[in-house]
Amino acid sequence: MAKLTYRFHEGKKEWKDLLGGKGANLCEMKNLNLPVPNGFVISTEACRNYLIQETKSLSGSLVEEIIFQIKELEMLSSKTFGIGVNPLLLSVRSGAKYSMPGMMDTILNLGLNDKTVHALSKITGNRDFAFQCYCRLIQMFADVVYNVATTNFGTIPTETKTEAEWKVIITNYQKIFATMTGRKFPQDAYEQLLIAVEAVFSSWNNQRAKVYRRIHGIPDNLGTAVTIQQMVFGNYSAESGTGVMFTRNPATGEKGVYGEYLLQAQGEDIVAGIRTPESISGLQEAMPQVYDELTKIANQLEKHYCDMQDVEFTIEAGKLYMLQTRNGKRTPQAAVAIAYDLMTEGLISEETLIARIDEEMIGQLLHPTFTDEAKIETVIVRGLPASPGAAVGQIAFTAEAAKEMSRKGKKVILVRNETSPEDIEGMSVSEAIVTARGGMTSHAAVVARGMGVCCVVGCENLQVDEEKEMASFVDGILQTGDFISVDGSSGRIYLGKLTLNEAETSEVLEKILKICDDHAAMSVYGNAETPRDIKEALLKGAKGIGLARTEHMFFQADRLKMMRQLILAEGSRVDEALAYLKEKQKNDFRQIYQILGELPCTIRLLDPPLHEFLPQDRQELRGIAQELNLNSHSVIAKAKSLAEVNPMLGLRGVRLGIIRPEIYQMQVAAIIEAALEVSKEEEITVIPHIMIPLVGTIKEFSMAKDSCVEIINDLFEKTKMRLPFEIGTMIEIPRACLIANQLAQVADFFSFGTNDLTQLTYGYSRDDAHKFLPTYTHHEILPNDPFQHLDQEGVGELMRMASEMGKQEKKSLSVGVCGEVGGDPVSISFIQTLPVDYVSCSPYRIPNARLACAKAAIANSKIKKKISI
Amino acid sequence: MAKLTYRFHEGKKEWKDLLGGKGANLCEMKNLNLPVPNGFVISTEACRNYLIQETKSLSGSLVEEIIFQIKELEMLSSKTFGIGVNPLLLSVRSGAKYSMPGMMDTILNLGLNDKTVHALSKITGNRDFAFQCYCRLIQMFADVVYNVATTNFGTIPTETKTEAEWKVIITNYQKIFATMTGRKFPQDAYEQLLIAVEAVFSSWNNQRAKVYRRIHGIPDNLGTAVTIQQMVFGNYSAESGTGVMFTRNPATGEKGVYGEYLLQAQGEDIVAGIRTPESISGLQEAMPQVYDELTKIANQLEKHYCDMQDVEFTIEAGKLYMLQTRNGKRTPQAAVAIAYDLMTEGLISEETLIARIDEEMIGQLLHPTFTDEAKIETVIVRGLPASPGAAVGQIAFTAEAAKEMSRKGKKVILVRNETSPEDIEGMSVSEAIVTARGGMTSHAAVVARGMGVCCVVGCENLQVDEEKEMASFVDGILQTGDFISVDGSSGRIYLGKLTLNEAETSEVLEKILKICDDHAAMSVYGNAETPRDIKEALLKGAKGIGLARTEHMFFQADRLKMMRQLILAEGSRVDEALAYLKEKQKNDFRQIYQILGELPCTIRLLDPPLHEFLPQDRQELRGIAQELNLNSHSVIAKAKSLAEVNPMLGLRGVRLGIIRPEIYQMQVAAIIEAALEVSKEEEITVIPHIMIPLVGTIKEFSMAKDSCVEIINDLFEKTKMRLPFEIGTMIEIPRACLIANQLAQVADFFSFGTNDLTQLTYGYSRDDAHKFLPTYTHHEILPNDPFQHLDQEGVGELMRMASEMGKQEKKSLSVGVCGEVGGDPVSISFIQTLPVDYVSCSPYRIPNARLACAKAAIANSKIKKKISI
Repeated sequence: MAKLTYRFHEGKKEWKDLLGGKGANLCEMKNLNLPVPNGFVISTEACRNYLIQETKSLSGSLVEEIIFQIKELEMLSSKTFGIGVNPLLLSVRSGAKYSMPGMMDTILNLGLNDKTVHALSKITGNRDFAFQCYCRLIQMFADVVYNVATTNFGTIPTETKTEAEWKVIITNYQKIFATMTGRKFPQDAYEQLLIAVEAVFSSWNNQRAKVYRRIHGIPDNLGTAVTIQQMVFGNYSAESGTGVMFTRNPATGEKGVYGEYLLQAQGEDIVAGIRTPESISGLQEAMPQVYDELTKIANQLEKHYCDMQDVEFTIEAGKLYMLQTRNGKRTPQAAVAIAYDLMTEGLISEETLIARIDEEMIGQLLHPTFTDEAKIETVIVRGLPASPGAAVGQIAFTAEAAKEMSRKGKKVILVRNETSPEDIEGMSVSEAIVTARGGMTSHAAVVARGMGVCCVVGCENLQVDEEKEMASFVDGILQTGDFISVDGSSGRIYLGKLTLNEAETSEVLEKILKICDDHAAMSVYGNAETPRDIKEALLKGAKGIGLARTEHMFFQADRLKMMRQLILAEGSRVDEALAYLKEKQKNDFRQIYQILGELPCTIRLLDPPLHEFLPQDRQELRGIAQELNLNSHSVIAKAKSLAEVNPMLGLRGVRLGIIRPEIYQMQVAAIIEAALEVSKEEEITVIPHIMIPLVGTIKEFSMAKDSCVEIINDLFEKTKMRLPFEIGTMIEIPRACLIANQLAQVADFFSFGTNDLTQLTYGYSRDDAHKFLPTYTHHEILPNDPFQHLDQEGVGELMRMASEMGKQEKKSLSVGVCGEVGGDPVSISFIQTLPVDYVSCSPYRIPNARLACAKAAIANSKIKKKISI
Repeated sequence: MAKLTYRFHEGKKEWKDLLGGKGANLCEMKNLNLPVPNGFVISTEACRNYLIQETKSLSGSLVEEIIFQIKELEMLSSKTFGIGVNPLLLSVRSGAKYSMPGMMDTILNLGLNDKTVHALSKITGNRDFAFQCYCRLIQMFADVVYNVATTNFGTIPTETKTEAEWKVIITNYQKIFATMTGRKFPQDAYEQLLIAVEAVFSSWNNQRAKVYRRIHGIPDNLGTAVTIQQMVFGNYSAESGTGVMFTRNPATGEKGVYGEYLLQAQGEDIVAGIRTPESISGLQEAMPQVYDELTKIANQLEKHYCDMQDVEFTIEAGKLYMLQTRNGKRTPQAAVAIAYDLMTEGLISEETLIARIDEEMIGQLLHPTFTDEAKIETVIVRGLPASPGAAVGQIAFTAEAAKEMSRKGKKVILVRNETSPEDIEGMSVSEAIVTARGGMTSHAAVVARGMGVCCVVGCENLQVDEEKEMASFVDGILQTGDFISVDGSSGRIYLGKLTLNEAETSEVLEKILKICDDHAAMSVYGNAETPRDIKEALLKGAKGIGLARTEHMFFQADRLKMMRQLILAEGSRVDEALAYLKEKQKNDFRQIYQILGELPCTIRLLDPPLHEFLPQDRQELRGIAQELNLNSHSVIAKAKSLAEVNPMLGLRGVRLGIIRPEIYQMQVAAIIEAALEVSKEEEITVIPHIMIPLVGTIKEFSMAKDSCVEIINDLFEKTKMRLPFEIGTMIEIPRACLIANQLAQVADFFSFGTNDLTQLTYGYSRDDAHKFLPTYTHHEILPNDPFQHLDQEGVGELMRMASEMGKQEKKSLSVGVCGEVGGDPVSISFIQTLPVDYVSCSPYRIPNARLACAKAAIANSKIKKKISI
């Protein structure tokens, strides 16, 4: 029979699977000889055993083990459980592998009954304390086990009362308990304990827990452990208290303890956000010895865990007890700063630093902020900056309303007095969360940081009436649908819609990304063609431009006109249009080369079908005919002849390059002339990379390439200048993947166009797939949108074939990915397993891509090492 | 130094590569001790050596060998070459590996000069004969070597003349020769010989030869051999003659000699079609002994060659000489009949029988004929039925005109006095060929049979004036562009356009196809859904229906209306439409099952997008709205919402089946109800094969399948009946090929839809590709249209992956090909190399597919045997 319970000194921090995070860390602290109240952990295995049965009941062997453990605790404490003059009281807490704040349930003071309450009263000499504890047990038991809200019992009296008065109160509590739950409050301590354990087990499958797991991608089959620990009392006396402390600032990452405490309170009082706690620095004055011990322990724990710790402690009559330690939750800014600091402090390696940065962090770091001009007079309220970022949206006062508005496509800001686990779904669809109450560790603050949603809490000047769906501030009121702007970094809330500004990369993040680049096997390029975007790409760390789309250069009014002339006119007027467009393109390429210098830039020749440059409407076509001085009948006829049933599969890319070779020739001439000029002017060597799109057969590539090379050689001849150049192909047609060995013989480089490759591999039109893709992802027919995350089984398999064949044929072949998924971390981790040299993505995705490339390379080399072992 | 010349008894029939067909067969006959005039062959290697040099000249060693061989001939014949009292005369003929009728050039009577003509005259005692031979030599030499038309010399006098008269004639011939060629007629016999050999060598590369090779796919690098043989003279005396004979009737295949001869003539007289020859039966009376010997030899040759022989013979003064034997050209009907007879006679194996039938033969056999009602009064002319089949078209009087008219898309019938090698290209584009002159072995007849073009020759009542571009018959005249109808099987020519009728499979062909079925590894199914087409498929030998397209069943007016109601209405009116369509479909399926009985039938659920059932035009949509009593705005809006940018890649196939599951459920219910009813009524077990199209992921197939199975189980429950059924998938999305192992786990069968698979693998839209496909095939960017012949490198590779993975996953998985290429022999020979169980094609292609499957299986097992060795 497997062991199902573990005394604290039997466990260790690595056993989170078995003991849950909280349990494992209590074990670790116990073994570090820190002041941890005794206790034991019921394993997640016991929970799984319990949940797996049809008729849920605790197994005989588990009950036996629990009784054995209680006897052990009785021995260590010289107290007795449920009877006697010195009663053993216990806390029962859940603790799963992953922290799920507020999701699981705690019962304190377990072991009190009508008899032991008197014993506690007598032995502590504090009747009020003993009865308050009993009240709290009854309340919590009702809440946790039977889902009866604590508010049914009213507030626990804090003033001194006589024994008779307390008896009346307790009798009343027990009556309420019986009325609301339909059963008597159990007097037998073991009965209390076993019911509580079952309640914790069952709570694994409550709705809130399921939602949290779904949102955070936590598997449903882990189960929770149960931690049973001897009670210590922060509410025992004036020299008692409870608090939470971070070893570094969880908002900024700054080194130095940071936290909150409350005297004469139990831990639940802080988490619930009911009383506003004091800063931890106050403790230094109030109880300097305790403060010293606490900070010493905290530092020891940080070094031991190699990460910033979030500890919970209780002081009982001047004595410090550690109740929990865990890696502290933090803002993205703090996460980045802390990880970098820990690395420079020598506590963690570069690989660990990289592992600790995640894409969401960077995404949040790079979240928009408000522009400096945000006028201070529109600030209506100020609160605690609980989760950074900035957001603009319309107010909702309930989670339901938030979901409803979000469904209608509105940007929502959820405004509440405080949030509770029931609000999770509503919070996850909101742009920002604002609460009138609570501190930096309140439910709203913790959850919002986890979700990366901008959040301001404790806005004392905001009165929220959730029923009437309105809130009042000093100068006015807010109603459902009103626009506000929320700055989660400053805690300021503005009336109306402020302008959002692109975030800039933080200095430390840039340092980390440089370290990433050192570890990455693939480079990151940018997809860009305008000077502005190219500069942005370089700023974000691009090593070059992987995809400059030339068709984007034809849409300015004068160029569009000439493009249309090229398409619709004939003879010399076509030549005129070509000449005009060549000069314009050449100028574009000059600018590109001037910005990039010798950095590589892959320029894709015209890709879309010609009809994309024409309107559909006859009237507009007549207008164009007039503008170009062409016969309107022939213009309409020509436009009609260009129309296609399936444009995606029609006359475009290299097909167009072959049917109308003069277009590619014009573009190639513009590229080469620009490169020659800039090379000469700047005294550098520009190496043009010319990319031919939509290639599916070896001969169409060769033919298009030969035609380009002819033009290039003519230009070299004419200018008496030369430069190196490369002509490569987009790999975006399934057939190209199947004949990649042939293509590698004649192409200088490959670049996967994953958008078209995905369209063709699935047979999906991006323009039409919205009719079924949502249903498909909803029913999990597709794990997700394959245009966002690369389809590894299908598209990925073709990419594997193509890249492997290509490299096998020609070792020097450079292979890149320039489609949408080139900036997607999930996709990058797959792409890393292929012989791909670089990914190319939108400028704003570059930082994430750099991180993803480093992570992928580290993971891949680990996999490779494993294989080589 | 390799040997370059071979005496006849040194060679054998297998050496066609080296000795050419004619030379190899002469060697073979010599070794069979048949009466073959002595001679030798200059090998194709010598020709290649000659052609490969820059300055064309015969090598010294070749000349030495030739001289040596001549000495040998002189010894054997006791004659001397070019001098003396008994001159040795030679024929010089070309002979390549493949027979190229009329392409190559022959010179007879070589060795005659001003002196030896007298010796010949003296030794034969026949002055006219000797001088006629000399005339012919000069004429042929001018023609073959210098391309000077024989007509320049006028007709060779046939009447008796004095020596002086002959001298004048010869002098005149030599003058014409000198004038036209710019050089003297060579008196040195060796000079004559070497010039002739060079001329034969050079003729390999003349234009006509090149065209012929291109049309027939003969490689350009083979070269021709030269056969040099002692002359025998069919024009020597009244007991002399020449002829050609087939061992079986080349038009019908009937056993028994068949041929033509001319007395006092040389072979060229027959081939040229100048004199109309007599039937071979005439020879039996005229020269019974010669006839007996000839038929005996012919039969011996047929047995020896295991094929119908076409022999050429010459009778010189009552003695028979064999000049050539070869496998005789024949009509498709004859080819089929002869091959089958040879097999039953035990001369060839079944495999050889199959190898001798080709797709063109079947195609021609199954060519249309005219209906019986073709009115006899419209017959304007009757000729010899030279090549069977029937055709309707417009008259062209020159090959040039035929090409021009064909280019314009017209169906052309070439009408000429006689055809010559220059006409080949014009003939190949014509529907039929009609000549006023010539016999069954004339150029027109031989070439037309080879091309499978319907042909009538020797129309004596037709006067053709090629210059004026008109022809007159008894009752009228014909001009360019006039419509006529030609029956190549009866020799009748009709005025105007007759109705063509589908050909019926001949009995013997059906027997052969049954033998094919025994040898084939893959079965042949039909693509059909109407009772008429299904019956036709079975008639043509289909083993089942591989693809019944249900969308074809929705286009009758009443059904289309209900389909539109299904698409455009809502609520109960959708149900009404579904119920209506279900009954109609059920009836369709009942008919199908009634025809097919227990033969398999794969029914594909609805494939096209719904908008294909709606018009585009607003006005028409309004009409539909009125007809269906629906709001016209909402109808127009709905139609608009269904429109797609790329319908090929949109909401169709299984995607539609998932978004609107009621449609597939309706179809499945109709299929199963029909199957249950017919099974009961006919006391058979119908096994429905339900095919889900456009599958790309495992879950979409499972989901659609589960939804079908639910309906089926409900029906079984309701009817208290059951039957076996299969649910499989179309493989037509590249991704499906890549995950075929997964699909095989849940699908009962695979069927490759090569049309869509080709569209997606290439990224070509069939509806739009016409804009570039012609250019692509013209520039050989594509070897051919991939929708006609399967692309083996790309699409084929995906099919290989899919079929192999599928079968590996599930041995019992049935795999078929139901796309266009399922009926294409070239594609079938590739498909045979995959683990595919059947191909399915249009009914009319089934016979060819059956043949192709047998050929492919035989070839594949040969390849496999080779590998296993």
